Amino acid sequence: MLGQMQNRPLALPHVFHRAEQMFGHKTLTGIGVGGAVTTGTYADWAQRVRRTAAALDELGVSPDARVGTFCWNTPTHLELYFAVPCTGRVLHTLNIRLFPEQLVYIVNHADDEVVFVERALLGQLWPLVDQMPNVRKFVVIDDGSDTEIPDDARIVDHAQLLASVEPFAGDFVVEDENRAAAMCYTSGTTGNPKGVVYSHRSTVLHSIAVLIADVAGLIERDVLLPIVPMFHANAWGTPYAAVFCGASMVMPGPNMVPKAIAGMLRDHDVTVTAGVPTIWMGVLPELERDQVPHLRMVLCGGSAVPRSLSEGWREKIGLPITQAWGMTETSPIATTGMLRSVHDGLSDDELADVRATQGQATPLVELRLADPDTGEIQPWDGEASGELQAAGPWIAASYYLNEDGGKQFTADGWLRTGDVAIIDPNGFVRLVDRTKDLVKSGGEWISSVDMENQIMGMPEVAEAAVIAVPDEKWSERPMACVVIRSGSELTAQQVKDYLATKVAKWQIPDDVVFIDEVPKTSTGKFSKKTLREKFAAEKG
Amino acid sequence: MLGQMQNRPLALPHVFHRAEQMFGHKTLTGIGVGGAVTTGTYADWAQRVRRTAAALDELGVSPDARVGTFCWNTPTHLELYFAVPCTGRVLHTLNIRLFPEQLVYIVNHADDEVVFVERALLGQLWPLVDQMPNVRKFVVIDDGSDTEIPDDARIVDHAQLLASVEPFAGDFVVEDENRAAAMCYTSGTTGNPKGVVYSHRSTVLHSIAVLIADVAGLIERDVLLPIVPMFHANAWGTPYAAVFCGASMVMPGPNMVPKAIAGMLRDHDVTVTAGVPTIWMGVLPELERDQVPHLRMVLCGGSAVPRSLSEGWREKIGLPITQAWGMTETSPIATTGMLRSVHDGLSDDELADVRATQGQATPLVELRLADPDTGEIQPWDGEASGELQAAGPWIAASYYLNEDGGKQFTADGWLRTGDVAIIDPNGFVRLVDRTKDLVKSGGEWISSVDMENQIMGMPEVAEAAVIAVPDEKWSERPMACVVIRSGSELTAQQVKDYLATKVAKWQIPDDVVFIDEVPKTSTGKFSKKTLREKFAAEKG
Repeated sequence: MLGQMQNRPLALPHVFHRAEQMFGHKTLTGIGVGGAVTTGTYADWAQRVRRTAAALDELGVSPDARVGTFCWNTPTHLELYFAVPCTGRVLHTLNIRLFPEQLVYIVNHADDEVVFVERALLGQLWPLVDQMPNVRKFVVIDDGSDTEIPDDARIVDHAQLLASVEPFAGDFVVEDENRAAAMCYTSGTTGNPKGVVYSHRSTVLHSIAVLIADVAGLIERDVLLPIVPMFHANAWGTPYAAVFCGASMVMPGPNMVPKAIAGMLRDHDVTVTAGVPTIWMGVLPELERDQVPHLRMVLCGGSAVPRSLSEGWREKIGLPITQAWGMTETSPIATTGMLRSVHDGLSDDELADVRATQGQATPLVELRLADPDTGEIQPWDGEASGELQAAGPWIAASYYLNEDGGKQFTADGWLRTGDVAIIDPNGFVRLVDRTKDLVKSGGEWISSVDMENQIMGMPEVAEAAVIAVPDEKWSERPMACVVIRSGSELTAQQVKDYLATKVAKWQIPDDVVFIDEVPKTSTGKFSKKTLREKFAAEKG
Repeated sequence: MLGQMQNRPLALPHVFHRAEQMFGHKTLTGIGVGGAVTTGTYADWAQRVRRTAAALDELGVSPDARVGTFCWNTPTHLELYFAVPCTGRVLHTLNIRLFPEQLVYIVNHADDEVVFVERALLGQLWPLVDQMPNVRKFVVIDDGSDTEIPDDARIVDHAQLLASVEPFAGDFVVEDENRAAAMCYTSGTTGNPKGVVYSHRSTVLHSIAVLIADVAGLIERDVLLPIVPMFHANAWGTPYAAVFCGASMVMPGPNMVPKAIAGMLRDHDVTVTAGVPTIWMGVLPELERDQVPHLRMVLCGGSAVPRSLSEGWREKIGLPITQAWGMTETSPIATTGMLRSVHDGLSDDELADVRATQGQATPLVELRLADPDTGEIQPWDGEASGELQAAGPWIAASYYLNEDGGKQFTADGWLRTGDVAIIDPNGFVRLVDRTKDLVKSGGEWISSVDMENQIMGMPEVAEAAVIAVPDEKWSERPMACVVIRSGSELTAQQVKDYLATKVAKWQIPDDVVFIDEVPKTSTGKFSKKTLREKFAAEKG
């Protein structure tokens, strides 16, 4: 027997119309090139969304075309966030930090028809456009910069385009909630980037999750400053959530230096902000406690938040950092680390340990741990580790055009996150490694990340990466690649002696090698793949 | 183009498994017959849900049977709230306050196979069971009362039944989120009760709404005391929401007297409670401010909250009442009245006016006003009134077996709520009347409720109801039916003179009649239908 409830789609037009109808007076502040501040209302914004919708038709963009954006976090980008999917088209946010060949690859792979690009970023994009033959138009957004604009038939001026049309006057309609709303490519460390295609349903549900009091609890009274870029995983979905609840927003534009971000937190009464750990490390020295009395949540993800960073914020600003975990494939928020009643009465030190976890799965997200070898499901006992797998209505089922042949997904449809984690009995997740970085020695797993953190605890060490090297007897053994802090001295034996006080004897690396620098990926993460290749070549 | 997200259903098994996995230590307190307190954990509860699921199979209840409950708010009722829908069956909560003939009607109309009934309520149900031939079993729940249990083959002892089975050990699975989860009949004032059939999707989405910070913001740290009965509109969905977020719960059982409720608020550190205005009127004199330091929200709906009641709570307890509006057909929460930033800086008096509204539509609910005559959509300008119509994924599309032939729904599928409202530019809804109680005089609408409230402002008046009477010249004219407070005296002319200072001259009723009592419906609302019939008969 079926329920008899209305078949209303979970789709972005509802979010748009709600904000237009109820929150027209709320504000969107944009910080432009050079720090210029402009402030408009949601009502202005909504009219521009309607104008942009009409402009897409004017450009002849097909009904379900992919529309690329090459933009910072700006009010204009937020117009595209709604105008594109509310007209049934697919927003394709292009990561401005990709390598040129990756950028060309994803524009062509997604088959973008049009790309909206900020003038200051045009210099980065234009040299590549002849390799993007299917992009008919590049719509250049005036951001106050003076980048030269080529005299080319493919160039369209954004302001002129919007002025040339009448705003769309009706109600936006998306009937099928499973229709694609947006896509984003992973900046994977191996192979080509892979496209994740978000639906209207997944986007609306994920936005609601951000509004849930126990997840992030965004409210109408908030002022959101999204530092995490809108060109990657939809700025963790925070812009959609803010529009849904009518929160005011401050859009930082290209002003990504810590001093500028601290200024925005101070000057605009920001209550909630979100960004990666590096950002909050940089901002902390620029802020004083009494400068940000309104700030109530600093959401942080992208990589594990060092305990010392969160404690630094707690001690100096009076507000610890709130961790969130997710990935492009999870929309991205899958866990957040708000404390629960079970933590009442813990000491500051114990609370800091809890905040150093990735937190609890949000409603509608399911997590499990699977043994990396056997796939056997592991208990949530705070001890057993396994590959973290995720299911839920905003978790990817596959990649665009099934690019990986489904390798990233289990037979029963769960996402293999590639993260190794431990989950405690209350559901708090602690990431311990990436599956591909685990070392399997004599049938036992060794966490490379744990060992790196131990080695980096030595005052003489600047950086350390632990990788697996093949071994005839043990199958794999750990090798430590250590960067000595400038001015310090260290021997391999000293590292081994130090580790002997910290880890089980069988885990101590046979080889400790010294290198000048740990190689990094385009997004600044340790590239252990490069190290593995280097040492495999040397051994081979 | 479609999104590529996992097709995970929005279904109650997720809510159950999440609570079992993450919140096993949280508590469920039941207040039984005579005030006996029992406390268990979610883990205990989850085991009993699993046992109840197995018991339904043991009883041979068919896979999508309707399963009736005739229960107060108790931990056992909460077991049925999950065991029934998580096994694919349909929970049919029977309103213990219905007239006997209505009760017989709905049990037969829904075709309930089994009814779970608390022992103390058996005396009310048993005389009717021979009129319910399709109910195979009545499962009697021991509530500590000593009601005689008939010696009848249809009687099953709940405790014995649960003891006779092994708890269901697997994962509950509901694949189709549109599958029926629960049903509830409206206690309509006209005609037979009509069944509203909730789906898993609607129930899960509605539960999430209750968790949204700007709606009610229920969190894991809360202790919920639902006074609103679980036998009507799922206690406003609060028990499902509490399980979803892991809030502890206090279940009041049959203890519905103000002193007992005040005691529960005091003794169990309740943070959130929900009930109709009459309850909070009764409880207020029983409470002192410093007795309920944990209380953060008193949710109130069912009928409009008098401004004086909310102000009374604010003045005495320091916490105004939060209004919510909805109906059985809307799951039921459609609006809640939390203040928004636009109200900052208002005086206490102005804030009280805002709190006297029904508040703003929740995310995913859409509202509109339609002219009762022409259907033309009215603006949200704080002045225009119209019939309130609602759309959204937890709003009914039709009644069970299409009992009303669709009269309650518009051609484009919106619910006609039967309420007349005004909406301000910020989306705050103010109910002014029921459509069927409006008076249309000379082409202009007169709100009967507004006029009643004016008349009830006279110190000599105990109650007043205003109804429409046919009029040759004006089509309809208002008639005031007034109950004089005992010991007072009042003439029709005095009422008219008083109204002349409050309303436009043309709105003043031609007839003011004095009656002994305003007739009431089974749920205690004014039955103006009875008055209309009475005076039509007298005139006719």
